[in-house]
Amino acid sequence: MRILGIDPGLRRTGFGVIDADGPRLLYVASGTIVVPSDISLAARLKTILDHIREVAEQTRPDIAAMEKVFLNTNPTSTLLLGQARGAAMCGLADSGLEVHEYTALQIKKSVVGTGRAAKEQVQHMVQRLLALNGVPAADSADALACAICHAHMQPLATALAGRHPSRLSAGRTRNGRLIG
Amino acid sequence: MRILGIDPGLRRTGFGVIDADGPRLLYVASGTIVVPSDISLAARLKTILDHIREVAEQTRPDIAAMEKVFLNTNPTSTLLLGQARGAAMCGLADSGLEVHEYTALQIKKSVVGTGRAAKEQVQHMVQRLLALNGVPAADSADALACAICHAHMQPLATALAGRHPSRLSAGRTRNGRLIG
Repeated sequence: MRILGIDPGLRRTGFGVIDADGPRLLYVASGTIVVPSDISLAARLKTILDHIREVAEQTRPDIAAMEKVFLNTNPTSTLLLGQARGAAMCGLADSGLEVHEYTALQIKKSVVGTGRAAKEQVQHMVQRLLALNGVPAADSADALACAICHAHMQPLATALAGRHPSRLSAGRTRNGRLIG
Repeated sequence: MRILGIDPGLRRTGFGVIDADGPRLLYVASGTIVVPSDISLAARLKTILDHIREVAEQTRPDIAAMEKVFLNTNPTSTLLLGQARGAAMCGLADSGLEVHEYTALQIKKSVVGTGRAAKEQVQHMVQRLLALNGVPAADSADALACAICHAHMQPLATALAGRHPSRLSAGRTRNGRLIG
C-alpha cells in the first residue's frame, strides 16, 4: 500500500510518500510545496491544488493521510489554514484519493511512542523508521509521520470498523502489521 | 463582462452569474450546490470543487467574486467554512478565473445602499436590480449580490489601482458604469 501524507499550510505544504509492505516501511518521496506570498489567495490555493495533483500523479499513491487541524486561537490563522487545507484536500480528492485524518496526538504516538514529542523527535524517528540518510526537513517529516501513522493505524481501523470480516480471519498477519 | 458570484459554505454553496453591460445588469443563472453531509470531508470538498468547475464551464464567466469571510466566534465553524471556501476558490482558479473578494458591508452597500440590510432586503433588491420574476433563494441572492457588487466596484477599483492608465482616459464612460 502506497500512502501519501500531507501537512497542509498556506505558506508551506509538506508531502511525504511511503510504501507499507506488511510491517516494512519504505521511503518513496517527500518535499515541501513553497507557496509564494505575493500572489492572490486564489492563486496561492491553486498552487497547492496543482502541486498536490502533480505529486499524486507522479507517485501514484493508493490512499492519503492528513493531520486533523490544530485550532489556532487566532480566527484569521484558522481561516487561512482551513482554506489551505481545503485546497490540499481538493488536490487529493481530485486525484481520486480517499483522505484519512489523524490527530497530532495519534501521529506522535504512532511515530515516537508518546503524544508529547518535540518536532525534533518526530524528525529523528521518521529518519530511523524509514532508514533515511539524513534528517528530513520539518514539513516533510510531519507529512511522512502522517503517512507512517496511517500505515500503523489502518489494520486496527479495519478491524474496529469490521468492514472486511473475511479478511479479518487472517487476523494475525494484520495484527502483525500493526505491531510492526 | 460576465461575473460569477459565489457564496461558499460546506453544506450549501450559492452561485450567481450576471452580465454587466455598462450600467445594465442582466441575469444569466443562479443556484445552490447542496452538499451531502453523510460523506467524508474530502468528498464534500470535491463536490464543491466539481460543481463550481461545472458552473464555470457551462456559463463561461470572465471573472469571479466572493464574499470575504465573516469570522465565526466558533473556531470549528471557521475551519469548516475555510475549507469550503478553499474548495470553492480552487474550483474558480482551476477554471482560470481571477477571484475578487468583497466584505459583507461592501456587498450590502452596493446592492441595498446600506451596510445594515437584512437578508430579505438583499433578496428583494437583487430581484429588482436583475428584474427577476420571483424572489431568489437566500444562497443564490447572496451570490448574485456579490456579482452585482463586483460590477459596481470594478470601474472604481481599476481607477484606484491605476492599472490601465490608457483606459482611464475614457474615464467618463467608466464612471458612468460605477454610478449606473
